[in-house]
Amino acid sequence: MNAVLTAIGDELLSGVRLEKNANFMAWHLHNKGIEVKAIEVISDYEDEIINLLSRWIGKTDLLILSGGLGPTHDDKTRYAIAKYLGCELYSDSMYDKILSRVKDNPDRLARLEKSRSTQAMIPVKAQPVYNPTGSALGIKFTKDNTQVIALPGVPMEYEAMTRQELPEIFAQDNKHVWASIIILGLPEMTIAERIPEVINNHALHVSILPAFPQVELIIRGKPDDVDEAEKLTRSRFDDVLPKGCKSLAEAVLYEAKINHAKISCSESCTGGLVGAALTEIAGSSEVFNGSAVTYSNNAKHKILGVDGNIIANFGAVSKECAVSMAEGALRIYDSDYAVSITGIAGPDGGTESKPVGTVYFGLASREKACAFMKVLPGNRSEIRTRAVRFALAELWRTLHNKNLEPKL
Amino acid sequence: MNAVLTAIGDELLSGVRLEKNANFMAWHLHNKGIEVKAIEVISDYEDEIINLLSRWIGKTDLLILSGGLGPTHDDKTRYAIAKYLGCELYSDSMYDKILSRVKDNPDRLARLEKSRSTQAMIPVKAQPVYNPTGSALGIKFTKDNTQVIALPGVPMEYEAMTRQELPEIFAQDNKHVWASIIILGLPEMTIAERIPEVINNHALHVSILPAFPQVELIIRGKPDDVDEAEKLTRSRFDDVLPKGCKSLAEAVLYEAKINHAKISCSESCTGGLVGAALTEIAGSSEVFNGSAVTYSNNAKHKILGVDGNIIANFGAVSKECAVSMAEGALRIYDSDYAVSITGIAGPDGGTESKPVGTVYFGLASREKACAFMKVLPGNRSEIRTRAVRFALAELWRTLHNKNLEPKL
Repeated sequence: MNAVLTAIGDELLSGVRLEKNANFMAWHLHNKGIEVKAIEVISDYEDEIINLLSRWIGKTDLLILSGGLGPTHDDKTRYAIAKYLGCELYSDSMYDKILSRVKDNPDRLARLEKSRSTQAMIPVKAQPVYNPTGSALGIKFTKDNTQVIALPGVPMEYEAMTRQELPEIFAQDNKHVWASIIILGLPEMTIAERIPEVINNHALHVSILPAFPQVELIIRGKPDDVDEAEKLTRSRFDDVLPKGCKSLAEAVLYEAKINHAKISCSESCTGGLVGAALTEIAGSSEVFNGSAVTYSNNAKHKILGVDGNIIANFGAVSKECAVSMAEGALRIYDSDYAVSITGIAGPDGGTESKPVGTVYFGLASREKACAFMKVLPGNRSEIRTRAVRFALAELWRTLHNKNLEPKL
Repeated sequence: MNAVLTAIGDELLSGVRLEKNANFMAWHLHNKGIEVKAIEVISDYEDEIINLLSRWIGKTDLLILSGGLGPTHDDKTRYAIAKYLGCELYSDSMYDKILSRVKDNPDRLARLEKSRSTQAMIPVKAQPVYNPTGSALGIKFTKDNTQVIALPGVPMEYEAMTRQELPEIFAQDNKHVWASIIILGLPEMTIAERIPEVINNHALHVSILPAFPQVELIIRGKPDDVDEAEKLTRSRFDDVLPKGCKSLAEAVLYEAKINHAKISCSESCTGGLVGAALTEIAGSSEVFNGSAVTYSNNAKHKILGVDGNIIANFGAVSKECAVSMAEGALRIYDSDYAVSITGIAGPDGGTESKPVGTVYFGLASREKACAFMKVLPGNRSEIRTRAVRFALAELWRTLHNKNLEPKL
């Protein structure tokens, strides 16, 4: 079985909005062994949509359209489908079910009633798709063995409606599984060369995703094959995150939980990104006490207790400051392990001895503290993202080895 | 002039990686009035790439390919181009320039030398494109009036190489401009209805991007037209972010700067996202002192000084706690204005009276403090993102009006 995922919208082609629905859907389809042949983004001209339908119907098992179903003048999907099918549109009573959800809100009710003439319209040769979170009805039909589903582009609505219409794609089964293995500190090529049996196994689908200092392997296939490949891979590397951990943040939280350790951070140039990464994961409150974002020198001193002499003598971006920040985060949050970050994310603020990208990391346990330094490439946003990964990677190693020895 | 943007890679079609290069490029092309006809993602089979080239060459002015130029077995772009052009490949000496950058690092030098047989190969009927940040050479050629550029998929390399090869797209000119106008607290339809002259002006390209409580209008066109449309739009709304501010975070920083006010935050369920949003912007250190991420109740008490009785009597997710957290953030960071966030991001932790999505926000100035509450829809990640927007929106209104009156 295969599928084609498409998105319709000028805002996608003009770069004002990033298309994410196809990525979401591709991941779930691929997990069920369904090949995505293509992802296409086209403009919201009726002719382009009709052309897209003509090109793919009869040539793929599943065709999902995203976008162009709203109430504004540039929402053309429902009219294009009707023209393609050679039929009229009718107003479907399923729209009343959507209105009934806002019956206690006269303003919203009036607004939705006004959109009935667009959002409730369904081609007579197609069927409506209920929208559980938004107001535009979707459209579905089957032609020439292609199942076509047109859904709103709003991600929350797209996700809810695909889950509702394609429950078998989202259900667990015992035929398809996937594993994520995250290895630290080695380049992509070295990793691939060390596990040729996995890379060259045609029963598996292996993706290698480098994001230094980590490389993620995603292995998909039948349960026994994936299981064996995962065991073999794990046996060949030292710094590999625990089974089931799909991110550094998950591994940090996992390791803290099994060690009954509380963790905390202090952040300067990352501005809260480490705390945000850890708290993205539900249940993080069990072990994560918090992060002190101390952007100003005064805050570093007053909140974390960094000695004014350290900042005066070594600067806020220094090994000494990183150590003191980590110790401060440990103390004020009363935690067992802490990581700190202070660096120059740019574009300004770099010097010859400390260029943009220079980031110091501190690590503290109740016994000792240390620091390490990296010069990270990229723009401000990339430097910050990379700094978060290094901080979490070394915090994980610290928790895992119960010892502070930065290595990456 | 028009363009087609394509990406090649199984990891994109299998959903393990989100394609972002086309979005980056589409934004810049569109700013220069160049229409993007389509964005396509295809798999890394040679035949698919040849098919793509055949379909678009001669039908678009510019065709950019992204991905498939690396050293691994699934990198097929250079071989597909050679086959399409009906020619052999040769090893281009431009690769030596790349090697010379790592001449002091024997490990990397050896690794790159090993990849010469793939990454330096160029079809004889095409030219190499220098890669200033990575190691794979790009490929360019012109055929049937279509300029074709094939670049690595790594975003940092793709960006650097498009800037190098298409400098006219990235240069400022006096023919094309764009404006971003962010309006708070009104639905998309109401905004569109209030500025029909702008929406219906065919000399302009208007995108409406709702992300409640904000709606962003992006207006592109000739300088005079955009200028007039922006003035008219701004005159029709009250809660509109200052000219030039392309995000809530920028507006908060702008307003703090002109008021010579220092700002800070305290965050529970957003875990650092507000601090991260503010510090994403270079120069934020001028006014932003920091954010105390206090995830545990103990940290709220110990670091922010939230009275234990408040947490015991009203809970950590309460108006009283939000007020106290904002006052605490103001005090410990010695700032003029502070915002706090405490809520239930889910998926667990909801109750009948405080369901998942319940978020309390506190605002504090040196004179007073207040709080407001929202029940935000979506999953954990969406609730957190929305909470950040509400916090920044009301912090901006507070700074702008020099008064604490949550309204959204």
